[in-house]
Amino acid sequence: MPDTAPSPRTRARRLHEKAAYDRATIDAILDAMPVAHVGHVVDGFPVVTPTLQWREGDRIYWHGSSASRMQKRAADTQVCLTVTLTDGMVLARSGLEHSVNYRSVMVFGVAQVVEGAEAKTAHLRTMMEQLFPGRWNQLRPITAQELKATRILSLPLTEASAKISAGPPTDPPEDRDWPVWAGVLPIRLTMRTPEPAPDLAPGIALPAYASGYRIG
Amino acid sequence: MPDTAPSPRTRARRLHEKAAYDRATIDAILDAMPVAHVGHVVDGFPVVTPTLQWREGDRIYWHGSSASRMQKRAADTQVCLTVTLTDGMVLARSGLEHSVNYRSVMVFGVAQVVEGAEAKTAHLRTMMEQLFPGRWNQLRPITAQELKATRILSLPLTEASAKISAGPPTDPPEDRDWPVWAGVLPIRLTMRTPEPAPDLAPGIALPAYASGYRIG
Repeated sequence: MPDTAPSPRTRARRLHEKAAYDRATIDAILDAMPVAHVGHVVDGFPVVTPTLQWREGDRIYWHGSSASRMQKRAADTQVCLTVTLTDGMVLARSGLEHSVNYRSVMVFGVAQVVEGAEAKTAHLRTMMEQLFPGRWNQLRPITAQELKATRILSLPLTEASAKISAGPPTDPPEDRDWPVWAGVLPIRLTMRTPEPAPDLAPGIALPAYASGYRIG
Repeated sequence: MPDTAPSPRTRARRLHEKAAYDRATIDAILDAMPVAHVGHVVDGFPVVTPTLQWREGDRIYWHGSSASRMQKRAADTQVCLTVTLTDGMVLARSGLEHSVNYRSVMVFGVAQVVEGAEAKTAHLRTMMEQLFPGRWNQLRPITAQELKATRILSLPLTEASAKISAGPPTDPPEDRDWPVWAGVLPIRLTMRTPEPAPDLAPGIALPAYASGYRIG
């Protein structure tokens, strides 16, 4: 898994891991995985909480309760938002050449609060439309009180980087004939059959955005 | 997704999310998901990096390069290690009642460095045996140099808590007849067909610990 510094530990690690700073690579990872881990500093201590993120152009957004301590503390302070997709376990011929195939993005910056009911509504609509196109207009409209109770935070993608580890194990030549299985065990996020709410009114069909939803 | 404080934002959130502090719940989540996000404070700023964690009794462990800046900085300082499994997207009748079903554990504490070649080897063996039982003894043995280049960090599970969000959407009664599909889109981590290394020597069969590996 990534460090912010290149790791000289193993040759394999160097061959395997690739840092990327181009927006196409960064955006593709952010767009594939809504679940992020946000790091804050609270009284000098790190706190890492999972949250949903979404990207709008050159910024990422996440939201939570206005009453949440984490949300309050994140506002106008430096945060680190990290998104990781686990793609596979890499089994090499020696223990410390084992690794994980993954795609990860780290975004650093000062979290800004989105102000104003209109702006907040527009961002929530965008989030919903990116996840489930067409759903926003089908929903019971949000209320002023709900909106007030929701804080939306945002970061620019100016300080963002990706790290990708992919491909087979890269044992040094002298290890390659060691008589042990080597290769990759691929991991994917998959969707199971949707589960309608027990109190769903009869006659409401599963919408295409739900049956077609994919993650990862 | 979780906050460290109970969220008064929505009734649904309160019904949906459950904090747990019992070790059985915490251990089950840690044992199901090796990928963690570790938060450090670096020059006052939060940094969140993905890493592999494993549990041995009352402690969790992770490892990395001795040369890694993150590993060096984590040693003997306060860290937050968070493990999250994303179980489903919860589609409610109104936008802000939407949520995510997940299982998450946060562990806080001062990261301790494991010292001594023998202790380090024992922990690496345990990690491998937990992931792939029987594999350690099949591998090319680790070298003193590899061991020296590896730092193992550890945290006690004394300051650990779990948060679990599960079940169908819990819209308030007045929203339940809104004519929109509501329910859960379940998400699972699944394994695809193992990919043998291109340079795998002929005649080496896929071991049972590889074909039977599961995550999540």
